[in-house]
Amino acid sequence: MTLKLGVIGAGAIGQDHIRRCMQTLSGSRITAVNDINPDNAGSAVARYAADARIFDDPHALIRSDDVDAVIVTSWGATHEAFVLATIAAGKPVFCEKPLATTAEACRRIVEAEMKHGRRLVQVGFMRPYDAGYRALKATLDSGRIGEPLMLHCAHRNPRVGKNYTTDMAITDTLIHELHVLRWMLDDDYVSAQVLYPRKSGKALEHLRDPQIVLLETARGTRIDVEIFVNCQYGYDVQCEVIGELGIARLPEPSAVPLRSEAARSEAILMDWKERFIGAYDVELQDFIDGVRAGVLRGPDAWSGYCAAVAADACVAAQTSGAVTPISLPAAPAFYR
Amino acid sequence: MTLKLGVIGAGAIGQDHIRRCMQTLSGSRITAVNDINPDNAGSAVARYAADARIFDDPHALIRSDDVDAVIVTSWGATHEAFVLATIAAGKPVFCEKPLATTAEACRRIVEAEMKHGRRLVQVGFMRPYDAGYRALKATLDSGRIGEPLMLHCAHRNPRVGKNYTTDMAITDTLIHELHVLRWMLDDDYVSAQVLYPRKSGKALEHLRDPQIVLLETARGTRIDVEIFVNCQYGYDVQCEVIGELGIARLPEPSAVPLRSEAARSEAILMDWKERFIGAYDVELQDFIDGVRAGVLRGPDAWSGYCAAVAADACVAAQTSGAVTPISLPAAPAFYR
Amino acid sequence: MTLKLGVIGAGAIGQDHIRRCMQTLSGSRITAVNDINPDNAGSAVARYAADARIFDDPHALIRSDDVDAVIVTSWGATHEAFVLATIAAGKPVFCEKPLATTAEACRRIVEAEMKHGRRLVQVGFMRPYDAGYRALKATLDSGRIGEPLMLHCAHRNPRVGKNYTTDMAITDTLIHELHVLRWMLDDDYVSAQVLYPRKSGKALEHLRDPQIVLLETARGTRIDVEIFVNCQYGYDVQCEVIGELGIARLPEPSAVPLRSEAARSEAILMDWKERFIGAYDVELQDFIDGVRAGVLRGPDAWSGYCAAVAADACVAAQTSGAVTPISLPAAPAFYR
Amino acid sequence: MTLKLGVIGAGAIGQDHIRRCMQTLSGSRITAVNDINPDNAGSAVARYAADARIFDDPHALIRSDDVDAVIVTSWGATHEAFVLATIAAGKPVFCEKPLATTAEACRRIVEAEMKHGRRLVQVGFMRPYDAGYRALKATLDSGRIGEPLMLHCAHRNPRVGKNYTTDMAITDTLIHELHVLRWMLDDDYVSAQVLYPRKSGKALEHLRDPQIVLLETARGTRIDVEIFVNCQYGYDVQCEVIGELGIARLPEPSAVPLRSEAARSEAILMDWKERFIGAYDVELQDFIDGVRAGVLRGPDAWSGYCAAVAADACVAAQTSGAVTPISLPAAPAFYR
Repeated sequence: MTLKLGVIGAGAIGQDHIRRCMQTLSGSRITAVNDINPDNAGSAVARYAADARIFDDPHALIRSDDVDAVIVTSWGATHEAFVLATIAAGKPVFCEKPLATTAEACRRIVEAEMKHGRRLVQVGFMRPYDAGYRALKATLDSGRIGEPLMLHCAHRNPRVGKNYTTDMAITDTLIHELHVLRWMLDDDYVSAQVLYPRKSGKALEHLRDPQIVLLETARGTRIDVEIFVNCQYGYDVQCEVIGELGIARLPEPSAVPLRSEAARSEAILMDWKERFIGAYDVELQDFIDGVRAGVLRGPDAWSGYCAAVAADACVAAQTSGAVTPISLPAAPAFYR
Repeated sequence: MTLKLGVIGAGAIGQDHIRRCMQTLSGSRITAVNDINPDNAGSAVARYAADARIFDDPHALIRSDDVDAVIVTSWGATHEAFVLATIAAGKPVFCEKPLATTAEACRRIVEAEMKHGRRLVQVGFMRPYDAGYRALKATLDSGRIGEPLMLHCAHRNPRVGKNYTTDMAITDTLIHELHVLRWMLDDDYVSAQVLYPRKSGKALEHLRDPQIVLLETARGTRIDVEIFVNCQYGYDVQCEVIGELGIARLPEPSAVPLRSEAARSEAILMDWKERFIGAYDVELQDFIDGVRAGVLRGPDAWSGYCAAVAADACVAAQTSGAVTPISLPAAPAFYR
Repeated sequence: MTLKLGVIGAGAIGQDHIRRCMQTLSGSRITAVNDINPDNAGSAVARYAADARIFDDPHALIRSDDVDAVIVTSWGATHEAFVLATIAAGKPVFCEKPLATTAEACRRIVEAEMKHGRRLVQVGFMRPYDAGYRALKATLDSGRIGEPLMLHCAHRNPRVGKNYTTDMAITDTLIHELHVLRWMLDDDYVSAQVLYPRKSGKALEHLRDPQIVLLETARGTRIDVEIFVNCQYGYDVQCEVIGELGIARLPEPSAVPLRSEAARSEAILMDWKERFIGAYDVELQDFIDGVRAGVLRGPDAWSGYCAAVAADACVAAQTSGAVTPISLPAAPAFYR
Repeated sequence: MTLKLGVIGAGAIGQDHIRRCMQTLSGSRITAVNDINPDNAGSAVARYAADARIFDDPHALIRSDDVDAVIVTSWGATHEAFVLATIAAGKPVFCEKPLATTAEACRRIVEAEMKHGRRLVQVGFMRPYDAGYRALKATLDSGRIGEPLMLHCAHRNPRVGKNYTTDMAITDTLIHELHVLRWMLDDDYVSAQVLYPRKSGKALEHLRDPQIVLLETARGTRIDVEIFVNCQYGYDVQCEVIGELGIARLPEPSAVPLRSEAARSEAILMDWKERFIGAYDVELQDFIDGVRAGVLRGPDAWSGYCAAVAADACVAAQTSGAVTPISLPAAPAFYR
């Protein structure tokens, strides 16, 4: 049976998921759309999903018999309430990151889901669905490079706007590494430290850029992540794993090798939206397939909670300059 | 409206397309399946498409009201008849390569489609849907390397079975280059020559392997294609375009860069089925979208005819050793 | 004992060899210099070799007791006479390419050297001294890629002047491949064919550019060499050997990997003089060491003769368009 | 005039320098050799420098009229005395690293040289003579990547013996980075910190391996150097400079690109001796040329002192785990 999806939040990313379900993915259709701005909902429906009903009340959408599962793409501050309501309705929910805006709120979602007794929540962290990260993890899991000892990572943007603040290097940028590296290593963070290199002359007055975040995991793996959001040259995500026997690296995005104008070259993407574009399709298809099969396998609420806790520690470390512990309880059996 | 597809031929590739439509692609479902062996049809329906009807008579399938468009994945020798019948029924048809087993048969399909007056046929050449070839063509079309003057290409398989004969280097292997290079260059072939290098000790007694095919186009571009089907090391497709201003090359398939055991390395695929796996999805989705939009844009019957004519000349050149002309009429306006 | 060298021809390359012997290499010094233009000789001596004597008569230089061995860097048309005179004097001679301007003249040198009874001649083909070609040959000789079956090569210059004519693509450009590939494969050429692709709009009116030369060897190896002397983007020499078990490629010249301006890139040389600059040092040091040890090991007169014979066939093939045989007698035991 | 060199210390590296001067480099010869073990001196002379005199007393060698300059390749603990004696004799000296075994001893050499009034000392740090590091520095100096903000470096060995202790990761291994990075950045270190990742199962019981050293420079550039001396896969030196506008990287050593056995690959060196083999020639030639021209340009005594001070701080940081300041006086005008 075709899965009936309701979407709460019809902004850019909401509309993109609607388009995806209606035109690219298999097995679902959009039957209900809500947005705090009814015009957004209307235009999304007009463009992609003529048969969908527009709901003024998101909670009515969640309860509707025409909705088998919910996609939450509204403003971050509203995520907790909509996810909790969907759990209360006993329906699966795909929630864009962040799962919630505080670690405590994430924890409440975790508790509610465990109380419900079955996984209902998938968080919209797309990197575990990227073909490159999957191939890298498969290499690690194969044992070919032995146990991972160190990771050298980088997350670079060509430039950011004036609203981007120093802490957003953690909460908007590093958050992706915090999630995907934990998944890749199957390990938890135990401490964080932040270094500030010489500031780039291209960074705005108020912003510390670049930054280096040092993380340690429970097994002792050391991770350094360079965050450099005014690097000028491109959107560039790097991940190199040094193991006991060898080194594996995240593949570069595919590009046409050129010889021209006295150089061999391959293009680097300038726009982050293109970097993981394929992963969004795989991610949402996996949610749809998981709901239909009755078994969600994507990023769970616990991983959203862990990312939030680690991010809080990193933000604290930005200010203190000190090695900051990251305290996580053991993962409940429910999530193992 | 969801497109209703009938499939003629439920062997390996037929079943793969059924799975694709039912589980991966958007906008279609399989409603009818026929196979010369009814068990094949039955097991395909059981596995992927429970709602599909099994037809004993392929022509009844073509005519059925439950079938909006037809996928022909039967034995090559039957393609012509099924494609002509589908055209006669005024329905779109996706036909796996070859369009037909002779150039004359391809020509008859071309004539029938022109007589019908609207494009109905898409041939299953998947390389124009490969992301690498598309990026390479986009580079050419951008003018960045100027006019193309020469192409150096290779099509290598690790090994082939004893049923693979010398002429199959053209009809089974080179056929993909013949199609995709014509599309990429938007140019026609005018001659072919075949060279036989020293034979590999790994090739079976009866087989000339490797071979080099030299092609010339109407604009004077020279193409060399190395065909080497017992190269041992991997399935490897290469395409390098030398232009007036620079060189562009087909990207390598993505692989994890490794440092281990005294080498930097990246894996090469051993199985051809993995090389263009993504392209099959894009190809069939484009057919579905094209049918629903009323405009087919994929490989047309004329391109199937041109590939067949060029292949015939190459096979003749294999025997004669001479430079063999390739004679094609001007493309009818219908196909431009 | 320090080797005393006399130089005939103090133009650009002669002066460069003088500088090399005096400032970079070990075991020799320049004791005598001759040039058809005495000012050239004088300025070379003034700049690099204050103790050298200037000879008006090149034959007196050859006979001088102050000269142990001769370097011939005069105009090509004079090479034969100077090399023959040096052989007659029983002294070793390093002769810049071409050994002589015709195959017959090369043959006369071969005969004279054999009559003398000991190797005295080294021809200034530097590519066998290039670290990249040596590494490539070592890979072939290791058996790692099995027997060589095909070679794909290219020799590209950014642009050439108006004095560069179509036949110079053979005699000035391809001549290097003709020599080095024979050395690398330890095999002789048996035929040549020349193809003319669509001409580059960047080539001058009178010049066919690019060209493709197809060579066949006695063991059946097929070689294609693209010659493209107005390729715009750089000086680029490529050599790829396809063997029964794998492929080995000439390494790219070392360059700093950059990420900047939306691209990963590495510089390509624009000036051919830089490409083999290290090889000239190794080449001449090997001559010096060989003379001192009494055993020359570098490119011999026979290899100069073979290159001349092959070049003649390629020039004939440029005009005829036909597959042109290359007839070489078996190598005399003297040169094996 | 040919430079007359005396060598103190005829062990492996001493003999290698003797061979270099006699067989490879231009402008010098070995006239005197001393070793604490006279047999070493004798065999070196017999093998490479028949005309050299064997000295029992190194100080007699230093004073000999047959010695224009001295090469010190004896045991590290003796370096200070021999270098000071050569300065006292007013002769140039090439001293293998370490310049001396303590920072204080290095400082005494610096004081002696300044008192003498002219540069006489070159320290045997060879990396500034490596073609790759020179190209990388040229890229930085060109301004193409803007001001350097961060460096990510690695120094990896396949394995080490049981005599290799944790502090040797600094004094034997990192010492090269400490010297070359200061040269490349033209900047001084101000602090060091050492992190211990999870230990490799391949490291012996007593050794912490790998280690990560974090350095900060006066201009705020942050450097991380991974030291991993049991990495198994190869001898691998990495250096990546992240600038305001782009990234430049140390080139990989040249290797033949292969396609074989399901992989594209290039060999990684296993033996550190091969990695900088070319740099040793350039280094010693530069010393010879510098002495003959009266101007030494290679690594000076001050840079040897700075490396020693930084190494001391890193060793302290290994034990304390704390961020350890590196205190250097401003460079005397003499060395600027």
